[in-house]
Amino acid sequence: MKNAIYAQSGGVTSVINASAYGVIKAALNSKDIDNIYVAINGINGVFDENLADMKKEDPDQIELLKFTPSSAFGSCRRKIKTEDEFEKVFNIFEKYDIHYFFYNGGNDSMDTANKIHQYAKKIGYDLKVIGVPKTVDNDLPETDHTPGFGSIAKYLSVSILEGTLDVKSMAADSTKVFILETMGRHAGWVAASTALAKRHESDGPHIILIPEVPFNKEKFFKKVQETIKKYGYCSIAASEGIKYEDGSFVAARGYQDNFGNVQLGGIGSTLGNLLKTELNIKTHYAVPDYLQRSGRHISSQVDVNEAINVGAMAVKYALEGYSGYMVGIKRLMNDPYLSTTKLIPLENVANETKLIPDEFISEDGMFVNEKFIEYALPLIEGEYYPPFLNGIPVYARLKLEKIKK
Amino acid sequence: MKNAIYAQSGGVTSVINASAYGVIKAALNSKDIDNIYVAINGINGVFDENLADMKKEDPDQIELLKFTPSSAFGSCRRKIKTEDEFEKVFNIFEKYDIHYFFYNGGNDSMDTANKIHQYAKKIGYDLKVIGVPKTVDNDLPETDHTPGFGSIAKYLSVSILEGTLDVKSMAADSTKVFILETMGRHAGWVAASTALAKRHESDGPHIILIPEVPFNKEKFFKKVQETIKKYGYCSIAASEGIKYEDGSFVAARGYQDNFGNVQLGGIGSTLGNLLKTELNIKTHYAVPDYLQRSGRHISSQVDVNEAINVGAMAVKYALEGYSGYMVGIKRLMNDPYLSTTKLIPLENVANETKLIPDEFISEDGMFVNEKFIEYALPLIEGEYYPPFLNGIPVYARLKLEKIKK
Repeated sequence: MKNAIYAQSGGVTSVINASAYGVIKAALNSKDIDNIYVAINGINGVFDENLADMKKEDPDQIELLKFTPSSAFGSCRRKIKTEDEFEKVFNIFEKYDIHYFFYNGGNDSMDTANKIHQYAKKIGYDLKVIGVPKTVDNDLPETDHTPGFGSIAKYLSVSILEGTLDVKSMAADSTKVFILETMGRHAGWVAASTALAKRHESDGPHIILIPEVPFNKEKFFKKVQETIKKYGYCSIAASEGIKYEDGSFVAARGYQDNFGNVQLGGIGSTLGNLLKTELNIKTHYAVPDYLQRSGRHISSQVDVNEAINVGAMAVKYALEGYSGYMVGIKRLMNDPYLSTTKLIPLENVANETKLIPDEFISEDGMFVNEKFIEYALPLIEGEYYPPFLNGIPVYARLKLEKIKK
Repeated sequence: MKNAIYAQSGGVTSVINASAYGVIKAALNSKDIDNIYVAINGINGVFDENLADMKKEDPDQIELLKFTPSSAFGSCRRKIKTEDEFEKVFNIFEKYDIHYFFYNGGNDSMDTANKIHQYAKKIGYDLKVIGVPKTVDNDLPETDHTPGFGSIAKYLSVSILEGTLDVKSMAADSTKVFILETMGRHAGWVAASTALAKRHESDGPHIILIPEVPFNKEKFFKKVQETIKKYGYCSIAASEGIKYEDGSFVAARGYQDNFGNVQLGGIGSTLGNLLKTELNIKTHYAVPDYLQRSGRHISSQVDVNEAINVGAMAVKYALEGYSGYMVGIKRLMNDPYLSTTKLIPLENVANETKLIPDEFISEDGMFVNEKFIEYALPLIEGEYYPPFLNGIPVYARLKLEKIKK
């Protein structure tokens, strides 16, 4: 018997289950893999022997994985640390004849996959380990971009387009500034992607704040005031993780709860309050939070297709004998957009973060330039709507019955 | 010459321009109306003689109004108060041969429309005034519901469905509660509508907090804990305007800015911090803010169709000689859903607020019942997607050139 385990780890995306679909379908269709199991809640499902057999699921529900956001199998944030833990993992692999391990996640998860790969080599256990990339943050090295990024970019571009129309219509005698708070604690790709909404000079966003560029309050105030003077309103996208020159988080300053604790997070409300208290400008801010990374109803078709593809290719590479690699995306051309996959050593991805390069950032540091647009625009192309029933999307409902020990 | 003015007022919706489309097309097609002008920024556009001639617009852009969220003509919050102001309005009406006035808004706007209607009668000026309903809040009396409500209900139902899948997947070893902060300062229709996402018992939302029911912290804590125990996670929709038994806003309590001012708003962060500080439960919260009422990319087809219809019928009723009425919606049947329009005296709508009736609210006050679902479900039916170009929707771009004085 040669069985496979697939699991998801870390923060989710709207297309991570499309990758699951790619892995599961390719494994089900392979003569060389007897059973494809999914570990529930990431690597924790291995420790708990909480495994579900994908042959037991309704094939229609497996098809719906293409459309289902978030993690259909549960995710986790666990790291494997001790020798004991590795021993336990491999005991379980042996017990269930696991010889293929597919881990779908970001840089932390690639670190876990890499350690499992190294341990297998060390003890001479026949295991092919392939990482499947996933993160809305787009911060994995060596891959052109990550599955999940195109869809959050599309969600946020559409959102800022619509939010800007709202503030525009109210600006004459009410709110003048709209702030969209986006994910992105270390890298600004997600906030930067809202620039894709801008098709005309007056369109929002007018300002994009990213962690790569230190926040300068005076420059920010000046640009807000100039924008309001020019268009009557100002639309801003801000990464949650922006910092002052001294490295302190902008969102960590100035606000306290009723116990006197400084509140972390909330860059939208922080900037809104700064503009209100220091410039007396009325603002509105939106915090999409989970909605941005789970908004499958507006995912990019390019992103969904690539997410499926990296999953299916993970199985293909493993069956060809590769181990210790993540499936990366290689861009072939922009117009029409075309990509293929490539193998990236897991050790090159583990715990590394890819920031926005300087060459993509505007001179004043508060926007992106044409090079960024050229890079990101193909990734939001195409609408790939989920099926709807009575007004809301139909997402997969899996049984996920634990297999017998 | 017999000309018409159309204008938009108050907070916007994702389908208010669909009503504009209905009015404008019907007026352009009528032999009895010579010119259809739009007042820019609501009634302010009348005072400023800032009027745009719809015959001068590109017909393709007029067609795009069906798909364009927010106010394409600018909105306002102005009320007409003094005799001088009324005189000025009617001088301008006379100057431009205005004999039809269509005002598209909520209860404040219907009050303005009613006063203009009354003043015309008083001075014997031939003017037909018809109100076109618009509000995401669904709080206008006598109409079955308001255009804009179905679409915000669909946006928020889809959003909580997706946000709940996210917290579900993270709950095993991380965040256990997801809170969606919704609009609704006085009436809870908007928060209540998220119940439409619930198709299975374990689905979110599990708790809905509305202004109609006083907030009881202990009961709330108990239900959150019970839900987490049962499903592993808890998903909550909360109106921004919920109050304690004593009438104070829940969101006004406990938080201060760095000047010592109590921060209003932020029910999501307030509830999140309550759960964190008092029960030590990790939460996430989303504040869609403008995105919920401008999210045309996921509007309901029923809502768009009705929005167009009330606009077109406003013109028809005016041409039939009616004045001093708002176009209401009358439900004819639920399955298949069918509605028609009716006339409602403006004075019955002006400044009135329709709350959720007790018969729609669950026994514990923290959810809605089957009667509510039966009422609201048909209103989110159907997807009516805007056209897309290079990944984002194409919305109308009007010239809005001021007509010569």
